[in-house]
Amino acid sequence: MKQPENKSMQIAIVGLGRMGANIARRLIRGKHEVVVWNRSSGPAEELGQEGATVAKDFDDVVAKLKAPRVVWIMLPAGKVTEDALAEFSNKLSPGDVLIDGGNTHYKDDIRRAKEIAKKQIDYVDVGTSGGVWGLTRGYCMMIGGPDAVVKRLDPIFSTLAPGVGTIPRTEGRDGLDARAENGYIHAGPAGAGHFVKMVHNGIEYGLMQAYAEGFDILREKNSDHLPEDQRFDLNLADIAEVWRRGSVVSSWLLDLSAQGLAQSPQLDDYSGEVADSGEGRWTIEAAIEEAVPANVLSASLFARFRSRKDHTFGERLLSAMRFGFGGHIEFKK
Amino acid sequence: MKQPENKSMQIAIVGLGRMGANIARRLIRGKHEVVVWNRSSGPAEELGQEGATVAKDFDDVVAKLKAPRVVWIMLPAGKVTEDALAEFSNKLSPGDVLIDGGNTHYKDDIRRAKEIAKKQIDYVDVGTSGGVWGLTRGYCMMIGGPDAVVKRLDPIFSTLAPGVGTIPRTEGRDGLDARAENGYIHAGPAGAGHFVKMVHNGIEYGLMQAYAEGFDILREKNSDHLPEDQRFDLNLADIAEVWRRGSVVSSWLLDLSAQGLAQSPQLDDYSGEVADSGEGRWTIEAAIEEAVPANVLSASLFARFRSRKDHTFGERLLSAMRFGFGGHIEFKK
Amino acid sequence: MKQPENKSMQIAIVGLGRMGANIARRLIRGKHEVVVWNRSSGPAEELGQEGATVAKDFDDVVAKLKAPRVVWIMLPAGKVTEDALAEFSNKLSPGDVLIDGGNTHYKDDIRRAKEIAKKQIDYVDVGTSGGVWGLTRGYCMMIGGPDAVVKRLDPIFSTLAPGVGTIPRTEGRDGLDARAENGYIHAGPAGAGHFVKMVHNGIEYGLMQAYAEGFDILREKNSDHLPEDQRFDLNLADIAEVWRRGSVVSSWLLDLSAQGLAQSPQLDDYSGEVADSGEGRWTIEAAIEEAVPANVLSASLFARFRSRKDHTFGERLLSAMRFGFGGHIEFKK
Amino acid sequence: MKQPENKSMQIAIVGLGRMGANIARRLIRGKHEVVVWNRSSGPAEELGQEGATVAKDFDDVVAKLKAPRVVWIMLPAGKVTEDALAEFSNKLSPGDVLIDGGNTHYKDDIRRAKEIAKKQIDYVDVGTSGGVWGLTRGYCMMIGGPDAVVKRLDPIFSTLAPGVGTIPRTEGRDGLDARAENGYIHAGPAGAGHFVKMVHNGIEYGLMQAYAEGFDILREKNSDHLPEDQRFDLNLADIAEVWRRGSVVSSWLLDLSAQGLAQSPQLDDYSGEVADSGEGRWTIEAAIEEAVPANVLSASLFARFRSRKDHTFGERLLSAMRFGFGGHIEFKK
Repeated sequence: MKQPENKSMQIAIVGLGRMGANIARRLIRGKHEVVVWNRSSGPAEELGQEGATVAKDFDDVVAKLKAPRVVWIMLPAGKVTEDALAEFSNKLSPGDVLIDGGNTHYKDDIRRAKEIAKKQIDYVDVGTSGGVWGLTRGYCMMIGGPDAVVKRLDPIFSTLAPGVGTIPRTEGRDGLDARAENGYIHAGPAGAGHFVKMVHNGIEYGLMQAYAEGFDILREKNSDHLPEDQRFDLNLADIAEVWRRGSVVSSWLLDLSAQGLAQSPQLDDYSGEVADSGEGRWTIEAAIEEAVPANVLSASLFARFRSRKDHTFGERLLSAMRFGFGGHIEFKK
Repeated sequence: MKQPENKSMQIAIVGLGRMGANIARRLIRGKHEVVVWNRSSGPAEELGQEGATVAKDFDDVVAKLKAPRVVWIMLPAGKVTEDALAEFSNKLSPGDVLIDGGNTHYKDDIRRAKEIAKKQIDYVDVGTSGGVWGLTRGYCMMIGGPDAVVKRLDPIFSTLAPGVGTIPRTEGRDGLDARAENGYIHAGPAGAGHFVKMVHNGIEYGLMQAYAEGFDILREKNSDHLPEDQRFDLNLADIAEVWRRGSVVSSWLLDLSAQGLAQSPQLDDYSGEVADSGEGRWTIEAAIEEAVPANVLSASLFARFRSRKDHTFGERLLSAMRFGFGGHIEFKK
Repeated sequence: MKQPENKSMQIAIVGLGRMGANIARRLIRGKHEVVVWNRSSGPAEELGQEGATVAKDFDDVVAKLKAPRVVWIMLPAGKVTEDALAEFSNKLSPGDVLIDGGNTHYKDDIRRAKEIAKKQIDYVDVGTSGGVWGLTRGYCMMIGGPDAVVKRLDPIFSTLAPGVGTIPRTEGRDGLDARAENGYIHAGPAGAGHFVKMVHNGIEYGLMQAYAEGFDILREKNSDHLPEDQRFDLNLADIAEVWRRGSVVSSWLLDLSAQGLAQSPQLDDYSGEVADSGEGRWTIEAAIEEAVPANVLSASLFARFRSRKDHTFGERLLSAMRFGFGGHIEFKK
Repeated sequence: MKQPENKSMQIAIVGLGRMGANIARRLIRGKHEVVVWNRSSGPAEELGQEGATVAKDFDDVVAKLKAPRVVWIMLPAGKVTEDALAEFSNKLSPGDVLIDGGNTHYKDDIRRAKEIAKKQIDYVDVGTSGGVWGLTRGYCMMIGGPDAVVKRLDPIFSTLAPGVGTIPRTEGRDGLDARAENGYIHAGPAGAGHFVKMVHNGIEYGLMQAYAEGFDILREKNSDHLPEDQRFDLNLADIAEVWRRGSVVSSWLLDLSAQGLAQSPQLDDYSGEVADSGEGRWTIEAAIEEAVPANVLSASLFARFRSRKDHTFGERLLSAMRFGFGGHIEFKK
């Protein structure tokens, strides 16, 4: 697909958390006309000073846009987003577009798209990766929605995307969709964007856990739990660094590991309690629905669950069984 | 194989820990002539009063036995057993038998059997299951060693074994080795006994962890972490009990779980730090040598490793990466 | 709880598959008055000859029962059961009881119970284990529903349950609910029965996979893939048999394994493609909802998924990566 | 550590497979004096034409080097390498250095280093990553051996390494060992190099399997096994490509996946049977020795084991149990 010329568009960004604010900012810098709204006024005013038009409420958002309107919702997934979408679907007109850029379950996208289609409003879901780095690096976007609408919004997406940059081209892509090389794809109908983003996060968990286990094995090799003649004194920061340089395991997550270890070799400040968001869980549920074996992705999720517990009840049950058959004593002291 | 008549034999039991003492005891009750030795004299004297002949050192053990001698070593696996076997192999005569009844790695058996074969001493390895219950229920035994020797020792094994008891017969076993139905098998040459026992323990870990995870899922369903309308108030002791009664998951380990839960529904006394012995680890190493996938058995082992840690270093690394790409803060408080 | 006298009750069994027919049969033998219905007439007529009253349609089922009526639905889970329950809820009267004895997701129970409560009809869910053996051994039952209703139906449940039988009593159960020792429990409100049964099946998968992996490791030790001096010639049927006799891993599933191996040591007739039913999947979903690590139960499910595939696409992707970084060739021949 | 000036050194490369030949080539291009030997003469002659000195046998290798000599063995791990090292240790003189650059188990390094230290020959182990790309990109090297020797060999290592190149610097590395940023580290005494390389490969398996599972989940979402309204038509090549562009999961392995998928969207040419080398296995053994949970790394290894089997025996045992308790028929057709 040939890239359309990047003409200026008008869009509203509703919700100016870290992600929403930076998306608005990158669009403003890309010469788009951006209307913003936020529950608390601080972030909206800040963006106002950078060139955004500040709306005071949802009605004002609608009023400040010309039809066909484009409203990008960037709110916490769940009820808040659900309510905002419901409200906007009552305020918008046929031909307008509602975008959910949050971390929504793709089945909710499918349901919502059907509902608002009754009002001839189009629904687009955008999964974004890139976190706090998106403003400068650009956002990697996975988009679901009707073909014509996603095409019409192309100036928005191509502004937000990283572009080809300095990343070497993949051999064999001649004739394939150029948008992928610019950092965004139209994955399919409503829900497809968030589905791909969901799996992205599932993979992310797996990659992270692979590094975590590997560095654990390296570090315990230094441990005085081992007999002295079996121990090394490995420098984990240097190991992470050297792997960034021509090894098979180089990656952005390794770059971040190298940085974390350079700054704090023992990672002492971290508690070790690791959160998980919905996507990692939904990925396993999708695997189960599709009957796909996913031992690595599920183990990665479970490692996080376990990290947040002192002990499981199951572990105490193991001790109870061991006491039962062998008289092994694993009582609290 | 027809069962030989259970004639009385002479045997020495070296090492009178819980297992060794009860093995000696069951043999005495079975009318065998038992010589005993123990590092500390208490357990030996106790068995002396029950009919055993107490030897004061290894030479005395040898002196008190008539050739061909049978010496059953029941000492902690590793150096202690290794040393005792080496010493006895120097004191015994061609035609004598050394039995290792401990938790030895089967490759050590193979090596040792070769070594002492040079002195025409036979090596027999016996893996036993049954724990503290063996004295009354009998010991389930997996035996490795030369065919003729294992046959000659049959009176010993058939005394120690549970016998057919009240356990229903397996259909289709007519013509198969009757020893299995009596609770002992001759698994193969030296090492085969401990190999089978090793895999037994690997399976044991897997079974235990399956119950542990299931009861975890039941218990967390009661937890106030869940929204109130998604909670139950399940009685785990009753659930374990009912599953003993005609369900597909009934087992001895479930019996022990039911008992543990009946006595302490929250299992409060247990710390949740679960030990593992060599066999669970060796089972995974054997799986790897054979290129057999063993996700369940390895996960069961790893759950125990994890149970003994406060946090892994890897978990802190996960947090460091999350901070790097998303600014997520998972610091110690 | 004291056992009520086992007085005769009237009940309809709707659906006479293997499970439904045997449940009806066991109730008839227990002197209950049983109305039966089945889509095809054969099974109903057969039970008619054994003493059941045959109903020709759902209206007839209702007509043949005296209020308060008890209708036990034993149909395939999903739409068939859903439709039958909806139909009966329109035909029954306040105070009547609808029982779902199938393999329903517990969340469907909760939803349905709420719906039919509007019509003052009570909903009871019964998860049963025991499979083809239930007629003679009795059914292990996990029951959800209102307390008063479950108590009123006790004569039904106590007839279906195995009773205390010859299974040794668990120490420490004095004063605890005696129903568990008779093989049935009232687990909680609607849904609790199927929830407990679901976790039961999840555990079942884990136990089965633990044995499967263990026997794999035993069998591959016989394989000519290994160097000859590392091989044994283990007899798996004898090993399974001996473990039934006093070992820690004895269980009903091991009994079945011993039987399968005695009859066919290589298990040649089995394809190795292993089905899974809903419960194993739902157990993992419940674990995820509760944030409980469940590596063993999920690996057991995934092993079945994998058993039904020739190859995964992911495996081909591994080869593609290996070709990319190392020139390793893993092409089709 | 300040980089020493890169003065020319003399070194022999023994074994000119793909890796050995390119290592020799890169050293020649870096102005080092390279003696080469290979079992078959072709590759040696080829390098001779590029500037290497061709030795006709091991004695000739030794003769063509000035003391203190440096001999880099680059032969298949195992007996071939073991024998070559033994032979050279008899031909070399005190002060000479033997380097094992192959895929050796680190415990073999430790043993060998001790042995040849008796002859005052130094042992250095070098784990390299970079595969077929090393000649142009440089080799990422993890080195074990005595400090003074590794320092003395620095001109060799700095020539082989990628150098800082265009990879962005890790924040916080001021004052840390500069060699890591140039693509090589001195990990510790003999064995430490191969230990770190071993864990590198363990992680590699984990990363690869994370992508494999994720792409499986994406691909099965297109499958006609799913009801039509739950299916998408995802373009995997575009998805891999877009993730290279600013997403959290970008990596070199993803680059290779993108390339593989661009060239063959269904990866039809690959059989799906995936080999594994020693390092993945040894990583799990190290984890077990250290009591480190490693569910992801082990599951990745097991996925490869499983990929090479039609069915496991364990899967047939599952079917046998299912037949036993439920009459489920999973026979061969």
